Amino acid sequence: MTTSPYESLVHAISDASLIGASASILSWDQETMMPEQGVELRSRQMAQLARLSHEALTKPAIGHLLSSSESSAEVKECPRRAASVREMRRDYERSSKLPARLVEQLARVASTAQHEWAIARKNSDFKHFLPHLNQLVELNREQADCLGIPEGGERWDALADGYEPGCRAAHVEQVFLPLRVRLQKLLDEVRGSKVSPSDRFNQTKFALEGQRSLMRFAAESLGFDFARGRLDESSHPFCGGSHCRDVRMTTRYKESCVNDALGSTIHESGHGMYEQGLPFQHFGTPLGQAVSLGIHESQSRLWENQVGRSESFWRWIAPNLASHLGNVADGFSSAELYGAANLVEAGFIRVESDEATYNMHIMVRFELERALIGGSLDPKDLPEVWNAKYKEYLGLTVPEDRVGCLQDVHWSMGAFGYFPTYTLGTLYAAQFFEAARKAIPGLDEGFAKGEFKPLLVWLNENIHVHGRQFLSGELCERVTGSPLSAEPFMRHLEGKIRPLYQLV
Amino acid sequence: MTTSPYESLVHAISDASLIGASASILSWDQETMMPEQGVELRSRQMAQLARLSHEALTKPAIGHLLSSSESSAEVKECPRRAASVREMRRDYERSSKLPARLVEQLARVASTAQHEWAIARKNSDFKHFLPHLNQLVELNREQADCLGIPEGGERWDALADGYEPGCRAAHVEQVFLPLRVRLQKLLDEVRGSKVSPSDRFNQTKFALEGQRSLMRFAAESLGFDFARGRLDESSHPFCGGSHCRDVRMTTRYKESCVNDALGSTIHESGHGMYEQGLPFQHFGTPLGQAVSLGIHESQSRLWENQVGRSESFWRWIAPNLASHLGNVADGFSSAELYGAANLVEAGFIRVESDEATYNMHIMVRFELERALIGGSLDPKDLPEVWNAKYKEYLGLTVPEDRVGCLQDVHWSMGAFGYFPTYTLGTLYAAQFFEAARKAIPGLDEGFAKGEFKPLLVWLNENIHVHGRQFLSGELCERVTGSPLSAEPFMRHLEGKIRPLYQLV
Repeated sequence: MTTSPYESLVHAISDASLIGASASILSWDQETMMPEQGVELRSRQMAQLARLSHEALTKPAIGHLLSSSESSAEVKECPRRAASVREMRRDYERSSKLPARLVEQLARVASTAQHEWAIARKNSDFKHFLPHLNQLVELNREQADCLGIPEGGERWDALADGYEPGCRAAHVEQVFLPLRVRLQKLLDEVRGSKVSPSDRFNQTKFALEGQRSLMRFAAESLGFDFARGRLDESSHPFCGGSHCRDVRMTTRYKESCVNDALGSTIHESGHGMYEQGLPFQHFGTPLGQAVSLGIHESQSRLWENQVGRSESFWRWIAPNLASHLGNVADGFSSAELYGAANLVEAGFIRVESDEATYNMHIMVRFELERALIGGSLDPKDLPEVWNAKYKEYLGLTVPEDRVGCLQDVHWSMGAFGYFPTYTLGTLYAAQFFEAARKAIPGLDEGFAKGEFKPLLVWLNENIHVHGRQFLSGELCERVTGSPLSAEPFMRHLEGKIRPLYQLV
Repeated sequence: MTTSPYESLVHAISDASLIGASASILSWDQETMMPEQGVELRSRQMAQLARLSHEALTKPAIGHLLSSSESSAEVKECPRRAASVREMRRDYERSSKLPARLVEQLARVASTAQHEWAIARKNSDFKHFLPHLNQLVELNREQADCLGIPEGGERWDALADGYEPGCRAAHVEQVFLPLRVRLQKLLDEVRGSKVSPSDRFNQTKFALEGQRSLMRFAAESLGFDFARGRLDESSHPFCGGSHCRDVRMTTRYKESCVNDALGSTIHESGHGMYEQGLPFQHFGTPLGQAVSLGIHESQSRLWENQVGRSESFWRWIAPNLASHLGNVADGFSSAELYGAANLVEAGFIRVESDEATYNMHIMVRFELERALIGGSLDPKDLPEVWNAKYKEYLGLTVPEDRVGCLQDVHWSMGAFGYFPTYTLGTLYAAQFFEAARKAIPGLDEGFAKGEFKPLLVWLNENIHVHGRQFLSGELCERVTGSPLSAEPFMRHLEGKIRPLYQLV
């Protein structure tokens, strides 16, 4: 039996991805399980695995197999295989531009920096984090230069392209600017309103044990499969893991606000269900991978907002709360709970923010990381500029860096160019959900009965199963019939906020 | 600055070990955290890391560096370095004899087999495990042939040498036979005794939450450092992890017997404190590794038996029980608890057995694995022969394979030649402890006051800190002044059992 070039290529790429899958478990372990003193050698482990994975992905044999696959009939005549090879070529070219030394160094510095960031955040001590941030910005600028700045573009673009293929800062700015104007207008109206939903539920303390049990119940009910995944705790919620049968997501808890943990859990469950929906037989190759971070965020934001903040979701979950949280939870009507989940209030923390202010948080981060990578912002000035932006966009005075520029994990992971995908994902989410509503009769009414499966199946079939066969723009047109637009999101948001705040 | 051959060697070996350290975390994860459906790809991950680690350990550059180090003055003139190079040479020769294919295959089969073993054990279904056992025995026989059977020795020896350098079945038999006779005699006397300690404590149920809290308290009090390690749960207790700052141990719980979890926890803490006592600066090289499994077991058995089953230990822990287990625990005197921890009763489960019967369990396993690897026992006949041996040695009729030949994880991990190290360790433990008693005035009385640190420091300084500088026999003579003997163990055992059972 002879093996075709395409088969050999698939085998080699999947084997190289396997190293990344192992690194991913170690990375999860570092955030959730590792004893504190493990960090020094863990950074060396992460660097080593990054180097080994980079070596495996860029070895010359892959280049040869790519060329022979590209010209083979079995690839040319099959759109799925052709798409897979197209994406493998993209990954290969990108990886080949990065020297092994830089890959290893970035992984080592990021692993250490994440640890130090967690300490800095806890103590609200930006100076503790600054040397690591300096290194990360420097290495990322170098990485961008190795990758090559696209024509007419800027350094940030080279990094963003790794998270969202084709993403450009100039384009992001064009999407963000008018969106901000519309959101600002809505926020002003909300501020002027005389009515507001009750936040009594958000002020009620619930024991963490009950919250933990509720989170598992919620994730499982929405469709996250615990035979193929876990839910743990970390200082910043995330979704990682090795592959579609081993998905690791985390959340975090505060006694004082169960909606924080619930929002994070549903958000990460959206990521987790996307991962679990990818085809196992294509593990490690583009047909078994997520399209982009924008599409990934579309899944998490869709479950978090279109589902988890819907009136019908709260009708379903309200009578289920007491068995986890105790009888106090019975004192809230589903209408009150729905209101509490949709309170509009400018706050400091992105992952706890409402749908109306969320994108403002993203816009601040986008502008700042663009400036950091572009070189116009010195990392040491980050807190000052961060705080000024929060004043300008959200009218808030940041009291300490813990709830300011130290709140997010991303930069400490060395991830620059990532943040805008949250807003892109938010827009995709609303657009996808409008399509799902058209396709599935009684979708919302089903939520009220705990029927989330039809939505998950629709997402599985229309988005997950394709892996990276289609780029995000193409996928959006296939699924919704139109290119990405902010209209569905604004329809969704205004349709919810205007009645709640009795705006005309 | 130039790097000497020895420095380059140390760097290369420590880098190769780092891959094993990552594999070790994944292996821990598989037993404690991994969702059930993760196993298929996890086996591929384990196989891949085994191959990468083997590749790194056997690459020709290491051979060259070994040769130039061996002849260099900086090594010849330093006994520690010379010992380190001697051990690196041993590892290199051993690894080089194994083809990469076999290493990879063993890791893959073992990872799957461990998973299937856990299922087989749960359902007491030996047939479910048999195909995996067949494969593992076959691969281990092949491994032994690759390694080479020592002159005048047998296949089993080649495997045992990997766990206990120089270990030979014929020698083990010579130690075991007279020991069995003496133990048999003691057991007969115990059976004939009209008195017996109360087992009321072992019959009392305690909620698992309280047990978990007690285990952490016990491990921490003995000296296990939770900033450099964890305690979790798995179907079979073990101690793994990456290095001395990231040690992962597990235990298991039964409501009906807190002493099961306690014994396992103290045993694994002994392993864990050995690992934590190895010098961090020598990570991944012989000077930062444990001598052998026999010496490793000496540490676990010493804490489990010489400490955890001592009268003074129970005087210390008795008044501490209620705060974890609830007030019911206050109804036991330290004398009654001490008796309950030292009940002699032939049972089916090795890890739950008392000190007098423990070695009988090991002898059964030794004889059976020797026969499996030697070829005189067909794996399919294992349950029958196992049950016959338990009848002969312990007078027990095994009711089901779950508590018979399926109880231990080792063979499913592909570990043959490992079991005798438990008895060797038990003998070393008693001999080391007699030396510690001489060196530390008031040692036992200190336990009653919760003072375990002097013992840990003594073990650190006399055993842990040396890494693999001395082979086990040499270490034993250095620490105790004599070669290994069964006398200290028999003194320890008889000195405890005779008074408890009022034997003359």
